Amino acid sequence: MPLSSLLPFYSHPLWADLALDVDPAETGPLILAAVLLSLVVIYLASKVGGEICLRINFPAVLGELVGGVIVGISVLHLLVFSEGGAVEPSLISTLLQQTAGMEPDLTALISQTSSEVISVMSEIGVIILLFEIGLESDLPGLLQAGLQAAVVAIVGVAVPFIAGTIGLIYFFHIDTIPAIFAGAALTATSIGITAKVLAEMQRLSSPEGQIIIGAAVLDDILGIIVLAVVASLAKTGTVEISNVVYLIISSIVFLVGSVVLGRLLSPYFLGLVDRLGTRGSLLIPSLIFAFALGYVAVALQLEAILGAFTAGLVLGETDRRRELEEQVVPIADMLVPIFFVCVGAKTDISVLNPLVPENRPGLIIASFLIVVGILGKVVTGLTVFGRPGINRLAIGVGMVPRGEVGLIFAAVGTASGVLSKSLDAAIIAMVIITTFVAPPLLRIVFKPAAVTIPALATEEGLAIASEARESES
Amino acid sequence: MPLSSLLPFYSHPLWADLALDVDPAETGPLILAAVLLSLVVIYLASKVGGEICLRINFPAVLGELVGGVIVGISVLHLLVFSEGGAVEPSLISTLLQQTAGMEPDLTALISQTSSEVISVMSEIGVIILLFEIGLESDLPGLLQAGLQAAVVAIVGVAVPFIAGTIGLIYFFHIDTIPAIFAGAALTATSIGITAKVLAEMQRLSSPEGQIIIGAAVLDDILGIIVLAVVASLAKTGTVEISNVVYLIISSIVFLVGSVVLGRLLSPYFLGLVDRLGTRGSLLIPSLIFAFALGYVAVALQLEAILGAFTAGLVLGETDRRRELEEQVVPIADMLVPIFFVCVGAKTDISVLNPLVPENRPGLIIASFLIVVGILGKVVTGLTVFGRPGINRLAIGVGMVPRGEVGLIFAAVGTASGVLSKSLDAAIIAMVIITTFVAPPLLRIVFKPAAVTIPALATEEGLAIASEARESES
Repeated sequence: MPLSSLLPFYSHPLWADLALDVDPAETGPLILAAVLLSLVVIYLASKVGGEICLRINFPAVLGELVGGVIVGISVLHLLVFSEGGAVEPSLISTLLQQTAGMEPDLTALISQTSSEVISVMSEIGVIILLFEIGLESDLPGLLQAGLQAAVVAIVGVAVPFIAGTIGLIYFFHIDTIPAIFAGAALTATSIGITAKVLAEMQRLSSPEGQIIIGAAVLDDILGIIVLAVVASLAKTGTVEISNVVYLIISSIVFLVGSVVLGRLLSPYFLGLVDRLGTRGSLLIPSLIFAFALGYVAVALQLEAILGAFTAGLVLGETDRRRELEEQVVPIADMLVPIFFVCVGAKTDISVLNPLVPENRPGLIIASFLIVVGILGKVVTGLTVFGRPGINRLAIGVGMVPRGEVGLIFAAVGTASGVLSKSLDAAIIAMVIITTFVAPPLLRIVFKPAAVTIPALATEEGLAIASEARESES
Repeated sequence: MPLSSLLPFYSHPLWADLALDVDPAETGPLILAAVLLSLVVIYLASKVGGEICLRINFPAVLGELVGGVIVGISVLHLLVFSEGGAVEPSLISTLLQQTAGMEPDLTALISQTSSEVISVMSEIGVIILLFEIGLESDLPGLLQAGLQAAVVAIVGVAVPFIAGTIGLIYFFHIDTIPAIFAGAALTATSIGITAKVLAEMQRLSSPEGQIIIGAAVLDDILGIIVLAVVASLAKTGTVEISNVVYLIISSIVFLVGSVVLGRLLSPYFLGLVDRLGTRGSLLIPSLIFAFALGYVAVALQLEAILGAFTAGLVLGETDRRRELEEQVVPIADMLVPIFFVCVGAKTDISVLNPLVPENRPGLIIASFLIVVGILGKVVTGLTVFGRPGINRLAIGVGMVPRGEVGLIFAAVGTASGVLSKSLDAAIIAMVIITTFVAPPLLRIVFKPAAVTIPALATEEGLAIASEARESES
């Protein structure tokens, strides 16, 4: 079939300004086809990976990450994302080229556009995940754990940063600015991975879970500030104090402001929801709230997931919480796997191959960063005070995974020319190991408590605990 | 804040090949912000429009379409899609430019990418809608109505096509090829709008609903074939018979094959689903099935929504139907409004303004096309045989809305240079009027029956009817 016979049943806004001679009526169905095929691949990877992990008693999310690695840049090249650089088209677009008779020129275009769409969908996935986590979290419990979470977050940023930077300078004779950058890459916990593992183990509302989630949220903000500082240091050699002050103030105003305002306004919000008669009368206003706060967070140079989490927290305090949770579950089931599979797919594990001689210097530095990265977070559990019987090890381990956030540090460092190739590879290796090791570790360290409160480990247990919490409040 | 201080917490595959000097780490959060803001606008438009329509006793989907018109290209310019041509950036990206300190150069880029993402999400929305409609449809009932639906579909394509073409040639002295093209644009019913209105009135499983849905699905396929014929006629002056034969065979093979194979394989599918233990164990395999069939449909040069509808039909025959329906509802609530608001937003109603002198020739032709477009479909109800007491008028009116499909005809015709400006405007006007008039008309013509079976008009009624149907089978 010639390309001209492809039937343009959907038009697309596309590339018109970019002086590319492409008819959007021709690319439209192809982009949709590429996105559909990508979603099929993502879901297959997430389910095969998740189910295998479940059977060998690992967290399902680890399986989704590994499934992503297998379909992604490292192995099968089915899902390929060009992170700043040009990359060969994914296998999916090559398949499209064959099944739909697409011209090779179009392949790169379709591949880029569809991977862009999948990227945004994966971000909406993690936004929905954090919204769900916020809904399931317990605001009073979180506030009660607030001071301890703050200490955990600050220690968990400071220890790996200082130990990493000094170690790189003294043991590896790395220059100060690259060492500071690599040290900074050790700081930010991936809230998504930790929260997902906790949710899978039904430990979100345990005291440990509350401290971990609170600390991970604060850690996320600290990570943003640290990145702003080191990025400006790398670019200009100085630190823009005004920018740091701006970030600190805006994050405090945002978090406190949205919770306080949200709690004040939620009765009016529910009153409005009660008067709506069309489909999605609770869901759509809640999504408007979550997406709007996500947008405000991005506009303040924070992260969208912080806004979604805060929106979930506020709506979780209302009496429509249970109903909203039930409606968010299928949406999360549909969108969240896209995020985890994409994180895996974007991870290039070839830097871990010791058989490649160029990898070896990076791997030696990586071993150091991994030790600092894990120990520097595990010690944070020791800072928790006044909570006899709490699982300190679990809190520390919960802060270990670096996930996508660490990869961004590496990408920014490499883009600004601060990081050498081996240091860049070492950071990526550290991110891979901490991300993939944390979920099973977390399951191991939480085991003893699971034996003492076995009911909590089942779905019924969660329902009972959740009801108990509701009747308390 | 300078652009350089924007914090790149998510990287994006983007534009790398296109010789644009854009750092994806800088555009990433902005694209996400633009998508989030667009979603907030879409949801606000859908809820405000839907609720107003509900209160004045119009179908909610009409409100979503009108809400889309108001936020779209016609009025507020908040959501702008560049359908093949360059368009000024949307107000959303201008707002982003101001709130996030974005450089003007980036605005066009962000605007295009985010509108592309929204476009694909809206298509996934209509895919989910048709999947849901398929789930709620009754395959035996649909097969029983098959012959009548086929007659309705064929008459509903032939009458407007012949009457439109001949009328344009004789009354308006338009050349043969443009007249054939405009006549062809009168043929394709928008299955999405009709199905949504029927679902809102809980009439999907009524005898009329079954015939309408069956006819709309066949009509969709006939529309694809007609478009292939006229597009090749417009381009080369001849008809590629081989292509027409290919389309007819592939659509028959696809529809029959996927239903037969699906019914054969569904026990194994359910057996597999029962063995899964991770979250979304029913939903994700079902989505894999729907998206994979959607992909196959696109690869066969059909439409993705046909694949999703067939997948829904097959899964609707299984005993997990009710459970799956419950999980699909919130997903449809989230994604379907994006489709209808986008259809409205893409519609430029300025061609309807009679105060603009250039519009007048088009409006006169449009009046003719509208009359032919409505009457040519309404008469199809008269062809229904052997069904005493059936609401023939409702069936005819159900086939009236042209929606997005008609707009594609206009876009293809204009792109290939066949349609004059006034004929193009006339087609767009015909699409607008048939789309916006059909939902309230459908509600009016269905009224009498609603009085005789009042229980069906309530949600409980649907549940009762649905249960009755289940116990029958």
